[in-house]
Amino acid sequence: MPTTTPGARGPYAKTAGVRQRILEACIEVFAENGYRATSMKEVAERAGISQRGLVHHFAGKGELLDAVIELREAESAKLMAPIGSGVGSFVGMLDVIADNSRRPGLVELSSLLATEGAAPEHPAHDHYRRSYAGLRQYFAVAFEALRKQGELASDLDSETLAVSFIALMEGLQVQWLYDRSTVDLDGMIRAYLQTLIPRFSALTDDADRPTARS
Amino acid sequence: MPTTTPGARGPYAKTAGVRQRILEACIEVFAENGYRATSMKEVAERAGISQRGLVHHFAGKGELLDAVIELREAESAKLMAPIGSGVGSFVGMLDVIADNSRRPGLVELSSLLATEGAAPEHPAHDHYRRSYAGLRQYFAVAFEALRKQGELASDLDSETLAVSFIALMEGLQVQWLYDRSTVDLDGMIRAYLQTLIPRFSALTDDADRPTARS
Repeated sequence: MPTTTPGARGPYAKTAGVRQRILEACIEVFAENGYRATSMKEVAERAGISQRGLVHHFAGKGELLDAVIELREAESAKLMAPIGSGVGSFVGMLDVIADNSRRPGLVELSSLLATEGAAPEHPAHDHYRRSYAGLRQYFAVAFEALRKQGELASDLDSETLAVSFIALMEGLQVQWLYDRSTVDLDGMIRAYLQTLIPRFSALTDDADRPTARS
Repeated sequence: MPTTTPGARGPYAKTAGVRQRILEACIEVFAENGYRATSMKEVAERAGISQRGLVHHFAGKGELLDAVIELREAESAKLMAPIGSGVGSFVGMLDVIADNSRRPGLVELSSLLATEGAAPEHPAHDHYRRSYAGLRQYFAVAFEALRKQGELASDLDSETLAVSFIALMEGLQVQWLYDRSTVDLDGMIRAYLQTLIPRFSALTDDADRPTARS
């Protein structure tokens, strides 16, 4: 901080603050309405700035969408384990879900954008298609590692297990949005994993220890 | 037909035909844009009628949404087995999914409306909340029946299995929309059921015989 002059820091910090406020407002509005039904006007109003001010920071809805997705993925990435972490990959994912479920608006946002994006002409379509493919590979590698360790109680191929695990997580989150008292997100995902990986609890106790995860 | 005069039949048949054309157009537009981002103008254009003509049949978007949901559920209900059908409940569900997957627009429609509807202020929110609760009960009863028959290879409670099965089906359909060559909807759902119900194939061969299902 002493390396920058107050005069230079001020405007940059202010810009970053405004961008942050816009993105938070945008996440709220996208979560409520989806991308398509949201107007720049609504985002500006929610952020408490003029439309002109909004356009100064984000030229259009497409730029907002990119920034929101990037922000959310960066937050998730902090909690995820590197590819090839075996059981740690599932622990990290459970952490992401626990984190999201403290802010149901974020679960609405992810579910809605991923579903809207299924239409090929949606601006986030290619992003989500790649993202699903990447996530499938990530969990296929994790299942395959557990299989090699003799920890997997399933004959299904790892790709099928990965697709199904991602489907389960996403489907549970949608039901959870409707009925949080019935859908125990964390408990149901763990129960599923426990069926596939009988020593899941024991292994994750190890993985939770900081030394075992680094 | 001979019991109605041509003069009386004509207008009714015409009205039914126009309503049908509107609903088909509406299903397409909802599937592409969701409910929120759709305007009456777009539905009218897609159906090839004036906005005034559209409003004559459906006063607003809410009425269209109700009619579309009712139509889709009636179509699914025809393929579903009655509650308490044990393994037949899963066979019927697989038939619904196979039927939908011949028309990907319908899968987009269901996924998008169910996800949009998670916002409490969405006009379809209460409908989908009840619908999920009903579907959970439906499959919990099916799993419970199989457990009593000694056909269930899981210690998880039937409610958890029902929630998870619904989640898996819906999550798989979203991924399938992005990548139909990777996600074998029918095969992956059967593989999951086979894990829970080791004699699933044998039992469904029985259930598929018309006599066993009546």
